[in-house]
Amino acid sequence: MTWSTVARVLDAVAVVDSAAAGDARTRHETLVKPSGSLGRLEDLGARLSAIAGACPPPVPVRPAVLVAAADHGVHAQKVTRWPQEVTTVMVEQFCAGSAAVNAIAATVGARVMVLDVGCAAEPPDHPLLRKLRVRAGTADLTREPAMSRRDAEEAFLAGAGVASELAGDGVDLLVTGDMGIANTTASACLIAAFTGADAAAVTGRGAGVDDDTLAHKTKVVRDALTLHGADPRDPVGSVAALGGLEHAALAGVICGAAAGRVPVVLDGLITNAAALLAVALCPPAAGYLVASHRSAEPGATAALDHLGLAPLFALGMRLGEGTGGLLAVPFVQASARALRDMATLSDIGFG
Amino acid sequence: MTWSTVARVLDAVAVVDSAAAGDARTRHETLVKPSGSLGRLEDLGARLSAIAGACPPPVPVRPAVLVAAADHGVHAQKVTRWPQEVTTVMVEQFCAGSAAVNAIAATVGARVMVLDVGCAAEPPDHPLLRKLRVRAGTADLTREPAMSRRDAEEAFLAGAGVASELAGDGVDLLVTGDMGIANTTASACLIAAFTGADAAAVTGRGAGVDDDTLAHKTKVVRDALTLHGADPRDPVGSVAALGGLEHAALAGVICGAAAGRVPVVLDGLITNAAALLAVALCPPAAGYLVASHRSAEPGATAALDHLGLAPLFALGMRLGEGTGGLLAVPFVQASARALRDMATLSDIGFG
Repeated sequence: MTWSTVARVLDAVAVVDSAAAGDARTRHETLVKPSGSLGRLEDLGARLSAIAGACPPPVPVRPAVLVAAADHGVHAQKVTRWPQEVTTVMVEQFCAGSAAVNAIAATVGARVMVLDVGCAAEPPDHPLLRKLRVRAGTADLTREPAMSRRDAEEAFLAGAGVASELAGDGVDLLVTGDMGIANTTASACLIAAFTGADAAAVTGRGAGVDDDTLAHKTKVVRDALTLHGADPRDPVGSVAALGGLEHAALAGVICGAAAGRVPVVLDGLITNAAALLAVALCPPAAGYLVASHRSAEPGATAALDHLGLAPLFALGMRLGEGTGGLLAVPFVQASARALRDMATLSDIGFG
Repeated sequence: MTWSTVARVLDAVAVVDSAAAGDARTRHETLVKPSGSLGRLEDLGARLSAIAGACPPPVPVRPAVLVAAADHGVHAQKVTRWPQEVTTVMVEQFCAGSAAVNAIAATVGARVMVLDVGCAAEPPDHPLLRKLRVRAGTADLTREPAMSRRDAEEAFLAGAGVASELAGDGVDLLVTGDMGIANTTASACLIAAFTGADAAAVTGRGAGVDDDTLAHKTKVVRDALTLHGADPRDPVGSVAALGGLEHAALAGVICGAAAGRVPVVLDGLITNAAALLAVALCPPAAGYLVASHRSAEPGATAALDHLGLAPLFALGMRLGEGTGGLLAVPFVQASARALRDMATLSDIGFG
């Protein structure tokens, strides 16, 4: 029952329109500038055209960031020095407007929405918060599966539902964000599972652990992969065993947005891991993704490489919340606006 | 007389406040995020604090792009396949709102101002255009100095004057832009002169020349350096011999903005070359600069390295007009907004 609802979301994602992408590339050759001189903005314009099935594509004017929050049983393994209650406290900060994501969202004119899909401590109600609490955090993935398959499916549907709500409100560009103390550990597990990379290649310092904790965290990831196995052909089983509720939810956000033909901007490590899950569940969803920044976390690069996505910038950011993704919003808007607003060489007599 | 006026602008540039930069770094350690997790946005916030002499620094809310346009006598050497009249035609496009710079300026909410400091053909009057035409393009730098020292000083003052006009209108973040067919050749000459790099290391394909033209263009640059010599201790003499009117004007824009404590965002090759000139004339001006993108032109990287500036992103852009610089505006705004708006760890009980 839950799976059949998930499958309906996945089935609703259309393959993007490569002919429209070609139209964008052709149009760029006619605009008042040297051929190719807008560099990767031209690629971005082609991607937006493919998503919209039209050239020029509509210029996104109502961006939003959706921050999916949840807690992690693997926190018990001392993979971070931050206490678990920070997850819920930060959810309250997002709602209050006093976190980094709010500062950057205000800069680029993006709406902020928060999804509690399983914080250990329930945050107070707030107009910016959707509570679809599948469970109060995952189990410890070093000892048992992080959650059941059904939990993962429900978390996916929670994310898809909020993406659908936002698209229904007119949101035309969706930035993904995350909050969850210890979620870089679960992300490393997922990235290793989906890419086949070694634990050491995808495990990083997260919020800033020391050398000893990094070595311990890497062993936690490796042992978890040994305990549960890794079968990328079973995406739901992989996230249930090794992932977080916010990963499942973010995969739902991606697929839900894609089903509504809304472009999705990825942020850093956690959303990159969620994108692997989304694309494993639904290969056409890949066409709706824009990689914003290259996180300082090594697993992020492994995930983006596997997805074939090149990030637009690398600022050494490693905060999450959607902060890096939001900085890409003007790039996306500018790429569409250039296709729509620029004169052509023939307009000025040089065509 | 002209030089004494230039000297007054240079003397008005104050050394930025390193104590305020230190305050920004200290404040970042107290905000609700892991230490250092905003990466280069934290460096940018420190730079803005140093410029303002205050932490948090004011959030720039009235950005502008100033596009300095001029023509080049070296065009006669067939260093590009674009006709010279394109310079003036593009000035008209900037005024009409139909060029790439307009599309990106509209995206980030920046005002557009154009300065004709020496187009070969005079463009029609327009409210967005300031005409301070020192001469109708430079002379051919392969045969004689591109302009007189006095021309260069007048072009500098034209740029400084427009920067001062904009600052007086409340512009609090100034993006530099350029237009001038053949100006990548003059830029390569200036960058070689100021950095000591070989002509081959700083000469690029500009708007897209073929291999033969690139080889010819490199020889033009090398021969010009041999003809005029290169003395970085004589910045005015260097730009007069080897540069363009827009380079001199953009150095004036940089110094004029710095004199008003307005941060300056550089764009690509031409503005990077102009920044070398500005800093040679006025070393404290370096503290007011933000490098936006790494242009696809090799000379841009040589110039930025010499200035000790690391660009925020590299998108393979090579258009000029201020297009890449404008994309950095939200980064600058976000860096200031984070320092101003974020809660502290002690606010949430973790200080």
